Amino acid sequence: MHRYRSHTCGQLTAADAGTTARLSGWVHRVRDHGGLLFIDLRDHYGITQVVADPDSPAFAVAETVRGEWVIRVDGEVKPRTPETINTNLATGAVEVFAREIEVLSTAKELPLPVFGEPEYPEDTRLKYRFLDLRRETLHKNIVTRTKIIRSMRNRMEGIGFTEYSTPILTASSPEGARDFLVPSRIHPGKFFALPQAPQQYKQLLMVAGFDRYFQIAPCFRDEDPRADRLPGEFYQLDLEMSFVTQDDVFATMEPVMRGIFEEFGAGRPVTQSFPRIPYDESLRKYGTDKPDLRNPIEMQAVTEHFAGSGFKVFAGMIAADPKVEIWAVPAKTGGSRAFCDRMNGWAQSEGQPGLGYIFWREGEEGGAGPLAKNIGPERTEAIRVQMGLGVGDACFFVAGRPDKFVRFAGDARTRVGRELGLIDENRFALAWIVDFPFYEWDEEEKAVAFCHNPFSMPQGGREALDGQDPLTIKAFQYDMVCNGFEIASGSIRNHSPETMVRAFEIAGLSKAVVEEKFGGMYRAFQYGAPPHGGMAAGVDRVVMLLVGATNLREITLFPMNQRAEDLLMGAPATATTRQLRELHIKLNLPS
Amino acid sequence: MHRYRSHTCGQLTAADAGTTARLSGWVHRVRDHGGLLFIDLRDHYGITQVVADPDSPAFAVAETVRGEWVIRVDGEVKPRTPETINTNLATGAVEVFAREIEVLSTAKELPLPVFGEPEYPEDTRLKYRFLDLRRETLHKNIVTRTKIIRSMRNRMEGIGFTEYSTPILTASSPEGARDFLVPSRIHPGKFFALPQAPQQYKQLLMVAGFDRYFQIAPCFRDEDPRADRLPGEFYQLDLEMSFVTQDDVFATMEPVMRGIFEEFGAGRPVTQSFPRIPYDESLRKYGTDKPDLRNPIEMQAVTEHFAGSGFKVFAGMIAADPKVEIWAVPAKTGGSRAFCDRMNGWAQSEGQPGLGYIFWREGEEGGAGPLAKNIGPERTEAIRVQMGLGVGDACFFVAGRPDKFVRFAGDARTRVGRELGLIDENRFALAWIVDFPFYEWDEEEKAVAFCHNPFSMPQGGREALDGQDPLTIKAFQYDMVCNGFEIASGSIRNHSPETMVRAFEIAGLSKAVVEEKFGGMYRAFQYGAPPHGGMAAGVDRVVMLLVGATNLREITLFPMNQRAEDLLMGAPATATTRQLRELHIKLNLPS
Repeated sequence: MHRYRSHTCGQLTAADAGTTARLSGWVHRVRDHGGLLFIDLRDHYGITQVVADPDSPAFAVAETVRGEWVIRVDGEVKPRTPETINTNLATGAVEVFAREIEVLSTAKELPLPVFGEPEYPEDTRLKYRFLDLRRETLHKNIVTRTKIIRSMRNRMEGIGFTEYSTPILTASSPEGARDFLVPSRIHPGKFFALPQAPQQYKQLLMVAGFDRYFQIAPCFRDEDPRADRLPGEFYQLDLEMSFVTQDDVFATMEPVMRGIFEEFGAGRPVTQSFPRIPYDESLRKYGTDKPDLRNPIEMQAVTEHFAGSGFKVFAGMIAADPKVEIWAVPAKTGGSRAFCDRMNGWAQSEGQPGLGYIFWREGEEGGAGPLAKNIGPERTEAIRVQMGLGVGDACFFVAGRPDKFVRFAGDARTRVGRELGLIDENRFALAWIVDFPFYEWDEEEKAVAFCHNPFSMPQGGREALDGQDPLTIKAFQYDMVCNGFEIASGSIRNHSPETMVRAFEIAGLSKAVVEEKFGGMYRAFQYGAPPHGGMAAGVDRVVMLLVGATNLREITLFPMNQRAEDLLMGAPATATTRQLRELHIKLNLPS
Repeated sequence: MHRYRSHTCGQLTAADAGTTARLSGWVHRVRDHGGLLFIDLRDHYGITQVVADPDSPAFAVAETVRGEWVIRVDGEVKPRTPETINTNLATGAVEVFAREIEVLSTAKELPLPVFGEPEYPEDTRLKYRFLDLRRETLHKNIVTRTKIIRSMRNRMEGIGFTEYSTPILTASSPEGARDFLVPSRIHPGKFFALPQAPQQYKQLLMVAGFDRYFQIAPCFRDEDPRADRLPGEFYQLDLEMSFVTQDDVFATMEPVMRGIFEEFGAGRPVTQSFPRIPYDESLRKYGTDKPDLRNPIEMQAVTEHFAGSGFKVFAGMIAADPKVEIWAVPAKTGGSRAFCDRMNGWAQSEGQPGLGYIFWREGEEGGAGPLAKNIGPERTEAIRVQMGLGVGDACFFVAGRPDKFVRFAGDARTRVGRELGLIDENRFALAWIVDFPFYEWDEEEKAVAFCHNPFSMPQGGREALDGQDPLTIKAFQYDMVCNGFEIASGSIRNHSPETMVRAFEIAGLSKAVVEEKFGGMYRAFQYGAPPHGGMAAGVDRVVMLLVGATNLREITLFPMNQRAEDLLMGAPATATTRQLRELHIKLNLPS
């Protein structure tokens, strides 16, 4: 028999009754039932109930074992009586009557209980992560995470992509966040940077002729910790393809991502054909470029119904500024004064002057509330018809310049949807957001600036750059969104060095900047670059959505805490004087 | 039709003749044959021959294209005439008659030719790596590398292992090499370290109950560049298992590694059942713990045949020091004075006084050479019989204390095997080296020290530590070797905190050192640790053996040069004053 086990703790069934088994695992729980000792023995694969009766030679040892000790048990597999069968347990039809127990490892008093998973302070959980990870939920989340990543790999390989690992000790990348630096010992005064993303390398792979690259890529950004962002490192499903258009990227990645959500979504419906929503439309309908499409509310502009109306506040704003618009947030089933007042109160708590509304109720089919009174029945009715509302519904209004209020309008839409229970929480609503602006107006600098990635291809190419108002140029750039989160982002790249230089010129940046920021890539583009494009999906975000976690630490193996410390390993730590000398650096501590 | 291609450049066959195809790719070569232009069009998948005749509307463009331009070609697929079929090419049965050519990207004059792969200075190849990677051999090596890694993953997953990614920003690990450090911005004066190996994390995973871990793990060591070691980062197939003995690790990993060599070894024979060679035996037979078992030579001690003999040099040494031994290196087919003298000359060039020998030739069946004369026919014959030699063979002798000459003896064995063509280059000879010593005598410190990993389990456990001469204790530690290279290394770990403290004590190290060096792990072992063990295989070394490369840069995508610089991306580079200030460091440059 094997030194430690003939079966795992998740393996024995009624078919094994009558045989002898050897199990090893952790003592999950010990119970004393009238002299009989019941030990729930746990390993990675499951739990098996072990019984030690006072006549067994194992009883004396069984009496000594405590929670989280590691033991080996030899015993006879017996069927449970029908009334004691535990259908929640894969091994619930049997129990093992211990003949011999060997203690493989004892455990000190636990700083963190494993059984029952009671809430515990985060620092304790992180310091004793090896205990925390034994807890059922976290253990399961981590295993699911690895399965999701494996599925991503298999799906990408299945459609002809190859995984290439790109360097981790590299040069600063132009992603815009802060780099982690690594002092070079061999080159005094110089530093490597950890990659914020393998952007340049993956484009170089295309120029090198590799066609379809992907990587479960570690990325590094030295940003201040935030609730939804772990300090330090994170993973992306990163990919790039040659000789493709935007449609090719969509046609390639839509089935991959839909497949992942279907495989791990526990039966929750997943969008079959992802809508493609232009950026501008997304802002106008949903108040954000990361819309939660489970929320059925779509906003519309109703400016004309307020222009010259008796509601002087809106009418006056419209008259004074041609850029002012009034957006309507329809609220099906929200047609009560109590609800409308609650929304108004929420808006005020958000620093807004309030939230105008009309509602329709039995007996007041023409519209109720002060605003309806002010604009009169015809305009009220026109709004009701445009928004498709009726008795029992309400409508809220946000006024001003859209670029100033769009975010608030989006929040109002979300709030209304949540409060009225309009959001179907049990599905995954996926979409592409497309046609991002290539440039934006930088109010501070009073100049045209890149909106997102300077290495994206402008729609219309070189001609658009030469002939079009820069602020009207769109990019072949896209996001994938799910349930209100951006889960992936990408673009068709600008593979022409001349077009790249021109694009930078418009943003007031010289060729020297191109050469400095994208040195390797810009050089490469001069020696035969294929049209190419790709995207990167956030592995952590996808896993969080799928397992329903709200904190990254619930889906990460050994995360740092919010102060960017690894409490388990004691990192970061001081370096020796010798190390610093070898790296040609000195400390420069705040005094 | 697709914007860029209906087929890849490796796809068209005779079956496509008569259809219209669209291809995109790089201009591999242009030839002018009597007015007809032949363009070899290349992409990731292959090469297709494109023909432009002067009547084609594409001819004018075809005349302008140069090597490594990227073009799109529309044209008719035509079968080649029987005498022009190229059987070396997957698409060699057809050619595409161009109707339209679009230039997608031009190329400046190439600093490095792609076609024909002429030798080029390494710095040029690294600076223009995107061109270098288009070359057939390197491109193929990189693709093979990714396939090998994919096969490793699939094999490990196929036998129940799960891939877990461990942190890259972490604490210093006790692997003994120099760490790369990353200054912490949030914790002034503190540093993260990049992992030299995920040793502690993988053991923590076992303590956390995850059972079977593997990872294609990036590892980082700040070592001085060497021919067989890239500066910076490298990859290991890292794995760990719970509730296992050494035999379990062998039974698990032998089929995985054998399978990899069989899958990618191009039909070359692979050892089916890996011999297990104790460390001491390996030294005595092969003069190294990384034996090349394709070399059939096995050394033996022949001390007694020289003790008290007429060969006074050896006899005197043996009499003066009981630790002196004489080892024999048998050389089948080496029985000529010319060969023996050449070996003697080689030994002298290695700084040795010479290499004693006996050889047997027709007419001198009793042994020839000065040494045979000195010891006489009986002793010579005894040696011949012991070593299994005969007419036409030779035998070389190394004398002294084995720990002093073992390395040279191993080199002599290799030399003899190579010179005589005894090594079958066309196979993969794999083996386990086992029973490494746990401690060694540190001559400098005059003390007992750990021989390899202090976290390995000593054979005999706590009892051996308490009752045995430390220098006789073996560890459950093992290497896997192939063709003279160590390709993997591992051990059964010491999972008992008490035994660990005792093991350190014997090496003169206090409990405080255990806590400092293995903090996270030592703490974890106190809360229920399973018996566990594992190993790590060098991905780069395995790939090199399989593709037959002798330089790591031939199997690495974007390697640094031997001065630890990335010439493509320009790393390492200077940092800004602001970056340094944020990281609380100052430069400390050599004056």
